[in-house]
Amino acid sequence: MAEAATPRRSRLTPEREAELYEAVLDLLREVGYDALTMDAVAARTRSSKATLYRQWGGKAELVVKAIRHGHPTRIEEIDTGTLRGDLHALVTQEDDCTMQRNAALMRGVAMALHHNPDLLQAFREQLVEPELAEFRRMLQRAVDRGEIRADCPALDFLLPMMVGAFVTKTLLDDQPPTRTFLTSYIDAVVLPALGAPPS
Amino acid sequence: MAEAATPRRSRLTPEREAELYEAVLDLLREVGYDALTMDAVAARTRSSKATLYRQWGGKAELVVKAIRHGHPTRIEEIDTGTLRGDLHALVTQEDDCTMQRNAALMRGVAMALHHNPDLLQAFREQLVEPELAEFRRMLQRAVDRGEIRADCPALDFLLPMMVGAFVTKTLLDDQPPTRTFLTSYIDAVVLPALGAPPS
Repeated sequence: MAEAATPRRSRLTPEREAELYEAVLDLLREVGYDALTMDAVAARTRSSKATLYRQWGGKAELVVKAIRHGHPTRIEEIDTGTLRGDLHALVTQEDDCTMQRNAALMRGVAMALHHNPDLLQAFREQLVEPELAEFRRMLQRAVDRGEIRADCPALDFLLPMMVGAFVTKTLLDDQPPTRTFLTSYIDAVVLPALGAPPS
Repeated sequence: MAEAATPRRSRLTPEREAELYEAVLDLLREVGYDALTMDAVAARTRSSKATLYRQWGGKAELVVKAIRHGHPTRIEEIDTGTLRGDLHALVTQEDDCTMQRNAALMRGVAMALHHNPDLLQAFREQLVEPELAEFRRMLQRAVDRGEIRADCPALDFLLPMMVGAFVTKTLLDDQPPTRTFLTSYIDAVVLPALGAPPS
């Protein structure tokens, strides 16, 4: 805890890191990705730009790490014993209020992906791919338990199958999906597509 | 054809209308929705702003009509006799080049939806809902033929199920989906979720 007050040159304490990420998320909500500057992060967090660059390499990496911190989908901690239980746990980790709060932020970042190749790369490598790898492990356990077949073709389409559930309502109703909507989608679409037992 | 050269006050010929829509789509690709003005459309198409407003009511309606014109998913013309045939026909109406050409345009419009409530409303009412209604008729035929059950829960999630296939690759690879990807998704996810015969 003493470290938090006097951050060392080479490493930040988890508390100080969390504080920085919160500040980055606040700034993202306030001004969006394009207008967010490392100067503003440094000023808001009373840190030097040199520290920020040394620790994160650049704005894209810092923003993606902050999102990952603020959006802690801990897929690796989920293991309920059934695929249905795991998938329900996955989509109900965040309550509806948090989902609402993060929706505008994620939409802003999604838009910024397309004119910021470094952000797109960091987003894929540090957010999408690690989560997809954990998601695949969850499904492998279902294969091992005999709930789904190892050669099920839907296993190649996990991402599009899930992304639609998250973005459609956001796009057309300007509302994030509710947990009720997401669990119904799991039961009606994802489990049948995977050929998994409905309950 | 003579009408095309001298458009009447009260109504435009189909040729003149098509010409206007093409000009709107070109402008959308060039400057995006937010920067597109009725003045620019009027100048580009040598028409009066009064005509544009009288004919379309406003920018949002004009843009949505232009998109619908440029993206002629004629769901109502598809009737192959099987659900799989219909869905494959649906996602292969556009060739990969057209899909590529329209992807950036659609992404720009999707972004603009969120700070333009009138655009969101026109997009829903004049584009999404009519196409969804046609899509539902396609599925009703499959129900009538006994290919899918009338109470299949996935029928309530047609839109998110399809949207994921279209946006995920665009979002993460900055590439529109190919027809091969879309037909594979239909076979691996949509038909099994609907409990429809695989072929």
